[in-house]
Amino acid sequence: MKTVHAQRRDAVRALARARGLDALLVSRDVNRFYLSGFELHDAQMNESSGRLVITGDGRDWLATDSRFAEAATRQWDPERVFVYKDEARDVAALLKRCGSRIGFEARGVSFAWARDLGKQGGLFLEAADGLTEKARMRKGQEEIGALQASFALNHAMLEWLGQSLSEGRFGEDAKEVQLAWGIERFFRENGASELAFPVIAARGPNAALPHAIPGDERLGRDCPLLVDAGCRVNAYCSDQTRTWWLGEKSGPEHARFSRVHELVSSAQRAALDMMRPGVTGKDAYLAARAVFEKAGEAGAFTHGLGHGVGLETHEAPSLNSRSETPLEPGMVVTVEPGLYYPGWGGVRLEYTVLVEEDGVRVL
Amino acid sequence: MKTVHAQRRDAVRALARARGLDALLVSRDVNRFYLSGFELHDAQMNESSGRLVITGDGRDWLATDSRFAEAATRQWDPERVFVYKDEARDVAALLKRCGSRIGFEARGVSFAWARDLGKQGGLFLEAADGLTEKARMRKGQEEIGALQASFALNHAMLEWLGQSLSEGRFGEDAKEVQLAWGIERFFRENGASELAFPVIAARGPNAALPHAIPGDERLGRDCPLLVDAGCRVNAYCSDQTRTWWLGEKSGPEHARFSRVHELVSSAQRAALDMMRPGVTGKDAYLAARAVFEKAGEAGAFTHGLGHGVGLETHEAPSLNSRSETPLEPGMVVTVEPGLYYPGWGGVRLEYTVLVEEDGVRVL
Repeated sequence: MKTVHAQRRDAVRALARARGLDALLVSRDVNRFYLSGFELHDAQMNESSGRLVITGDGRDWLATDSRFAEAATRQWDPERVFVYKDEARDVAALLKRCGSRIGFEARGVSFAWARDLGKQGGLFLEAADGLTEKARMRKGQEEIGALQASFALNHAMLEWLGQSLSEGRFGEDAKEVQLAWGIERFFRENGASELAFPVIAARGPNAALPHAIPGDERLGRDCPLLVDAGCRVNAYCSDQTRTWWLGEKSGPEHARFSRVHELVSSAQRAALDMMRPGVTGKDAYLAARAVFEKAGEAGAFTHGLGHGVGLETHEAPSLNSRSETPLEPGMVVTVEPGLYYPGWGGVRLEYTVLVEEDGVRVL
Repeated sequence: MKTVHAQRRDAVRALARARGLDALLVSRDVNRFYLSGFELHDAQMNESSGRLVITGDGRDWLATDSRFAEAATRQWDPERVFVYKDEARDVAALLKRCGSRIGFEARGVSFAWARDLGKQGGLFLEAADGLTEKARMRKGQEEIGALQASFALNHAMLEWLGQSLSEGRFGEDAKEVQLAWGIERFFRENGASELAFPVIAARGPNAALPHAIPGDERLGRDCPLLVDAGCRVNAYCSDQTRTWWLGEKSGPEHARFSRVHELVSSAQRAALDMMRPGVTGKDAYLAARAVFEKAGEAGAFTHGLGHGVGLETHEAPSLNSRSETPLEPGMVVTVEPGLYYPGWGGVRLEYTVLVEEDGVRVL
């Protein structure tokens, strides 16, 4: 029986063949890991830990340098581990053994690296981005299991955070950076290998910035608090956003917050209710947007509705005004409408869902 | 009076002019931050937060998209912030206003990005890597202050760690990953914005791997423990390594460890004693290596002697067998000899030093 990695390589091999390629050179670390299990992250010095060659005949290569050769043989048939010294020269020689028309990830390698490879001569190098990313869109059972574990921890964090806020563990004097660090600690001390992305913890007017960086501002009171956070568990990312009201739940500001929160929640429900296989990313975006348009608030919805989540926090497919990708069972996407008012703040609510045969299931 | 960023841009401008360039397009995030103060890290989606154009006439541009335009104007003359929509088209148009022969960082941009820029026509794009990196080698006073703060925290961590080990806070049953997380927590709760690189905490035979990844192995006893860790404070990195003996300080294994530790320490002192302006990276490497050769252990010294440290943990110059770069006052480099014995373990000792007029000073 083929391993899950071998099955994934067969799927990418079919995509490469359909493009007329003799072989595909996989350089992006996340794609390499998906197809081989070898090293999710490249080395700390921004150096590649290795590249895969997906061949026409199914006898694929893992090319690496001597530093990683031992680790490579733990994941890969030692006879098909190729150790290079002069990377451009040796990888070019390997590729020539695999055919002449070679696809490569033009968005995943530096200009200098591709130029050096091309200079070796004898190869037709062709930009072929997105083939592995396309295969990664539909998650397998083992991936869904890892995603469920990652989101279970994310939900546990949100529960702990909600309690901590209501019990005053993070009071008016707490800084955004302290809250962000508390969230990171919770993730790391409860099973996450790392954050999926830097924690966003934004109070008051900072909540109007979709990608706010936590600062030394104190939480204060009578304003919104937006938290967007994710962790990595078993290699897979989670991503959720909630927005709370800090302080007394009364008065005109709180009433405004409640209206905005309810409107964002309605937009989210509208999208969740209509999402199913065949619905495009654009359809889903427009379903949420229609709720804002009806309320005359669409101008404050300044970003897309969502994105795929998996080995990366942001991956295909996107849910936005340009996305013609139809949803398919096994896709995992965020649904995160938001309304932002500069000077006041904003509300974003984010669930991540698994697309199933007859709709979507919140992870 | 010119700001420190303007002074740095003038230095890079002179290097670009000496290369015959009309302008230099700076894309690497760390170089952009060094020259402008704008955003040390690109956005979380692997997207550029903006690029600098260092011009011939000194009226430089910060080009970004609408998401970062407001943040850009906090760091930069709003009249010289260029907001692009179609990045390749608009940046090409901006570059044409700055001349025709344009240098770019071929190792700092993707093949696809450079290709798209080149397709716009009308520009001579020329790979010009390393100009900003060259300027970054000699640190200014404000950089040295930040490095001192980063290394002060690193020393405090090592003191805390040595005490924690001797008091049994991390006992035989502690896992490498727990030790690594304890170190990260210490850094983050005492002033670091992030790690400079993932903590290496390697016990026993794992200490023989120069880039070990902490795992679930328990520390145990009567074996070496190697810790290589760094934090970021005020944007600047620190990097230090120590190796301890776990357990009773007696018996033949401990005697072997002591001999290896003393030998590595001697090699480190030999390099530190001869390093001063004019000495090349190769000279320093050979001075340490000579100590190992005399003891017949040079085969176990499998990597270079050191590397520059600053906004990045690994930057120019290198200290190794191929480095012809002469040391200059203001350079900051690690001095980290190590001896590695597969199956047994290893010892690495790392200080980072500032090159001064008459020698080096340990940070």
